[in-house]
Amino acid sequence: IIVQAVMRMLNIKNDLDGKTIMVTAGPTREAIDPVRYISNHSSGKMGYAIARAALDRGAKVLLISGPVALTPPVGAEIIPVISTQDMYEAAVSRFEEVDAVIGAAAPADYKPAEVSPVKIKKTEDAMTITLIRTPDIIKTLGRTKTRQKVVGFAAETQDVEQYARQKLVDKSMDMIVANDVSANGVGFGSDYNAVKIIRHDGNLKEVPRMPKEQVAHIILDELASLFEDSVL
Amino acid sequence: IIVQAVMRMLNIKNDLDGKTIMVTAGPTREAIDPVRYISNHSSGKMGYAIARAALDRGAKVLLISGPVALTPPVGAEIIPVISTQDMYEAAVSRFEEVDAVIGAAAPADYKPAEVSPVKIKKTEDAMTITLIRTPDIIKTLGRTKTRQKVVGFAAETQDVEQYARQKLVDKSMDMIVANDVSANGVGFGSDYNAVKIIRHDGNLKEVPRMPKEQVAHIILDELASLFEDSVL
Repeated sequence: IIVQAVMRMLNIKNDLDGKTIMVTAGPTREAIDPVRYISNHSSGKMGYAIARAALDRGAKVLLISGPVALTPPVGAEIIPVISTQDMYEAAVSRFEEVDAVIGAAAPADYKPAEVSPVKIKKTEDAMTITLIRTPDIIKTLGRTKTRQKVVGFAAETQDVEQYARQKLVDKSMDMIVANDVSANGVGFGSDYNAVKIIRHDGNLKEVPRMPKEQVAHIILDELASLFEDSVL
Repeated sequence: IIVQAVMRMLNIKNDLDGKTIMVTAGPTREAIDPVRYISNHSSGKMGYAIARAALDRGAKVLLISGPVALTPPVGAEIIPVISTQDMYEAAVSRFEEVDAVIGAAAPADYKPAEVSPVKIKKTEDAMTITLIRTPDIIKTLGRTKTRQKVVGFAAETQDVEQYARQKLVDKSMDMIVANDVSANGVGFGSDYNAVKIIRHDGNLKEVPRMPKEQVAHIILDELASLFEDSVL
C-alpha cells in the first residue's frame, strides 16, 4: 500500500500516459421540428473538466461533445454531435481505440417519434408529442467492452445512491459517478459538484462540494486505480 | 424628402436619443422535469445586435433575455428570464415605460401541461407529453399598446412572407421582420441574417444576407422612420 501511494505521488502528473480516454460531455438535442427541440440542463462543464484533467495527466483524449458554450480543451480530439444517435454512433465507432470511456454527457433518453420537416404552426391550443427511447450509449459500451473501463454518471433528483447502484449493475459499468442535480450550488451549470463515486465492487467514495476541476482529478484517481487493479 | 435624408445622415449616431426600447432576445425553456426541457435554436444574436445598435444610437435599452451564451451589451438593463411566462410577465410589467418593443426572442409557444417535480425515470419505451400554449407576448403588447411601436419577428421555414403578413395583422404589430430559418448561412446561430421587413402599411423592404449588426441598424432605421411618421 505504501509503495502504491508513493508511486501515485510520483506519477501524479503523468499517470495516464499511454492511455486513450473517451469522454462524452454536454447535453444532446432531439429535434421536434426545424426550430424546436428537447434538451436538458447539462452544461458540459464536468465532462470538459475531466477531458482537461486527463490531458494534464498524459492521456490521449477523445471528447465527444454535445452543443455547449465552452472552450474546447487544447490537445483533445473533439467530435461535435447534436443528437443522442450522433453521440451513440461516434462513441461506438471509436470505442475499440480507447482504454476507458467516461460518460459525463447527459444524452437525451427520449426523442420525438416523428420529426416535422417544417416548423409546426401553433394552430392548436394543445398538442401531444409521442416520445420514443434513444439508444443507451453507456449500456451499449458496458455490454460490449473488452479491456475498456466504463465509467458512467447518474444525475438524479431523488434516491441518488440507490438509482446509481442499479445503473452500475444494469449497464455493466466499472464505476459510476452519482450526483443530486436538485441540490443547490452543484451539478448542472455550476462550476462546483458534489458526487458519490461507486465502484463495481460496491466501494463508495463521497466527494464533498468542490470545483469541478478537483472532482475531475478525483474521478481520474479512481480510474487510475481501476487500471492498476487490472494489471495486478 | 431631401431634408429628411440630410437629417437622418446628421443624426445617424444619435437618432434614438430620448427613446426607451425594449428588446426581447434568445429562446425560452419550458421544463418537462427538473432536468429536461423544450427549447429552440434561437441564439439571441439578432436581439443582442439590435440592443447594441440601439444603445449606439442613443436609446435607453431594456433587454429581456432568455438563456443565451452571449456577452451582455454594456449599458443595457438586462432582465434574465427562463420560461415564456417569465418573459411575458417582464415584458408586460415594463411595457408602459417604453417607446417601442422589438420582439427578437423566440419564446417557446408550447409548454408541457404538467411539470414533473422529480426526474422522470426512463421506464417506458414510449411516452407522450401533452403541450399547452404559452401566452403570446407580442400579441398581448400589440393589442394593449398606446404610443408604443411594436416590432415582431417571424421565423419561418416555408411561405415566409405570407405567414409574416398574417402575423403582422393578427398581432397588431407596426412592423415585422421575417426570415427563413431553413435557409443555409443565415438565421438561428449564424452571425448573418437575411430578412424581409414589412411595415403595417404593407411596404416591404428586402434585406439581403449581411452581418446581424448591419441588419440590426436597418431594422432601427425603419423603426426611426415609424417614430417620425407618428410625429408628422
